[in-house]
Amino acid sequence: MTTKAVFHPTCYGIAYTNGTSFLLQFEWRTNCNRNDVLAGVETDAYFFCLWRCYLGKFSYFCEKFGKKNMKIGIVQQTCQQDTRKNMEKLCEAIRKAASMGAELVVLQELHNSLYFCQTENTALFDLAETIPGPSTEMYGGLARELGVVIVTSLFERRAAGLYHNTAVVLEKDGTIAGMYKKMHIPDDPAYYEKFYFTPGDLGFRPIQTSVGRLGVQVCWDQWYPEGARLMALQGAELLIFPTAIGYESSDTPEEQERQREAWMTVQRGHAVANGIPVIAVNRTGHEPDPSGQTNGIQFWGSSFVAGPQGELLYQAPKNEEVVKVIDVDLQRSENVRRWWPFLRDRRIEEFGDLTRRFID
Amino acid sequence: MTTKAVFHPTCYGIAYTNGTSFLLQFEWRTNCNRNDVLAGVETDAYFFCLWRCYLGKFSYFCEKFGKKNMKIGIVQQTCQQDTRKNMEKLCEAIRKAASMGAELVVLQELHNSLYFCQTENTALFDLAETIPGPSTEMYGGLARELGVVIVTSLFERRAAGLYHNTAVVLEKDGTIAGMYKKMHIPDDPAYYEKFYFTPGDLGFRPIQTSVGRLGVQVCWDQWYPEGARLMALQGAELLIFPTAIGYESSDTPEEQERQREAWMTVQRGHAVANGIPVIAVNRTGHEPDPSGQTNGIQFWGSSFVAGPQGELLYQAPKNEEVVKVIDVDLQRSENVRRWWPFLRDRRIEEFGDLTRRFID
Repeated sequence: MTTKAVFHPTCYGIAYTNGTSFLLQFEWRTNCNRNDVLAGVETDAYFFCLWRCYLGKFSYFCEKFGKKNMKIGIVQQTCQQDTRKNMEKLCEAIRKAASMGAELVVLQELHNSLYFCQTENTALFDLAETIPGPSTEMYGGLARELGVVIVTSLFERRAAGLYHNTAVVLEKDGTIAGMYKKMHIPDDPAYYEKFYFTPGDLGFRPIQTSVGRLGVQVCWDQWYPEGARLMALQGAELLIFPTAIGYESSDTPEEQERQREAWMTVQRGHAVANGIPVIAVNRTGHEPDPSGQTNGIQFWGSSFVAGPQGELLYQAPKNEEVVKVIDVDLQRSENVRRWWPFLRDRRIEEFGDLTRRFID
Repeated sequence: MTTKAVFHPTCYGIAYTNGTSFLLQFEWRTNCNRNDVLAGVETDAYFFCLWRCYLGKFSYFCEKFGKKNMKIGIVQQTCQQDTRKNMEKLCEAIRKAASMGAELVVLQELHNSLYFCQTENTALFDLAETIPGPSTEMYGGLARELGVVIVTSLFERRAAGLYHNTAVVLEKDGTIAGMYKKMHIPDDPAYYEKFYFTPGDLGFRPIQTSVGRLGVQVCWDQWYPEGARLMALQGAELLIFPTAIGYESSDTPEEQERQREAWMTVQRGHAVANGIPVIAVNRTGHEPDPSGQTNGIQFWGSSFVAGPQGELLYQAPKNEEVVKVIDVDLQRSENVRRWWPFLRDRRIEEFGDLTRRFID
């Protein structure tokens, strides 16, 4: 057991360590309320990072290296008619992300194909596949080969006449860590998803992986605070949204920007309200409307990663393909939730009516 | 009494008017759910604009003119020790806003006094007052005189040892339109509100006024998507947050900006998720900590109005007092909710667990 006294402008105390574990006892000087305490305390084997003291009471966090980082790869692409070529390009991108250090790679929504929901066409159900199936085998193999976790977004054929928009998370060993079936299904001109996808029946459940507990949802879900909150209440460490969203060309540039900004704002709002990072990966490029009824969709790219205060850590351009690895400090979520302990004060006894369609 | 039959693609019915008031009786055709009904019905003296029909039930709003704009005054101020002087300054500001055309004036949180929650001091309960009481009488008188609706934020003494942080909305005739008792109570260094305020027991209920249905909450409530959603589900047309929030001087400038941005982002996120505007009115100026434990609070001002896509319509500076009137087009909420009909698709059968503290 090593004992070391600690003195610092904002705290003083004693650190004990036996080389593998440690105990810290601190008192904080009276003027250190609401401050980060950035005292570094070096003992025999450990660098202790001490921080945050509330209310004259004591709070501390200690880790070997004080930080829990995750390298997150995002792949923003254009798609073409030939699904095989899309998948080959995705494999290349995943390899590239892994070579850049990614431990987790997130793909965009329905990445294997064009966004086929621009028209209602029964022939397009041919694009669907079972889970497990060819895609989980292929991306699972890649996950195993590269030792990364991959968030895929697939068109699932569950039974004849029963299809879902399903995110499948593949573990580093190639197995299926879990899946999420898109819960909120949109239906707008050029986004006829209610024709293709039955709303998910797995609820909002985070998926436990070797890199963390992932709150995966899909696209339209991103507009709903309820899903984000339910993920956070189940311990999700990240909110993740594979997405396919873009502009309608007849909207004014100002309206297009308002929509893109709204899309970012609501998701960054989930990050703030829940004190965890958000990752949204969107497709890019123009895809024509096969029916000719609209001018097609100009997908707005802009994939982004926001930290637990909603702060933008990265944003992709609108019109370029991107493979990018972003370093996210998950320890920051712990800090932010201490500073702003929203979960402490929720008035749950008054939230029952959230299960109503409308209160009239 | 004039009677006029009304026929329109989406509705039919009868309008009665005696020249000064009116009665409308309508039935809606079966295919008009979720639509704006833009029928203009001209009778002797009135052009009635009818709109809003929900889910087979009927809801309508009538105005002389087909657009529904609201002029919203916001008052961002510094406060001083002398409450009488604060109130005099507020009265001047409300008069100024009214003279600029405001129909609704929103004040900052606990506007009559310094933000007294920086320390826990039983003597400060002397600042509290009953509702109705001196403040509702004074601001009510002003509302009547100026013909404006005023959102006030008062320290309420409900009984000996029972206090609330209560927003009171005063109608144009000076009466109390309704009140909201702050539901989520923070407790951080320099924000010792749990000492002063019992959490509200009125729930999240919008307040009907002559200018619209107001979803008034207070400060810490602004971080919670649940309250905003409950207000929207009860037909709130605006979300309104009197606020007192600021920087701790020992935080880095970057951290201060992250906090201020997070504060805006989460509220703009409520606007997006619910398709209605948000008004947040914050105090400005520095207030010292009477205990000397901290460096006091530098309130960050930045009061803002955002539209139903979260788009900023106005933002006040950080360090200046402001009286500003912003023109908000409430018709835009109707349009935005048609484009992005989030309320249509909520998976309410899966939201029951939102009433749990944590799902573990």
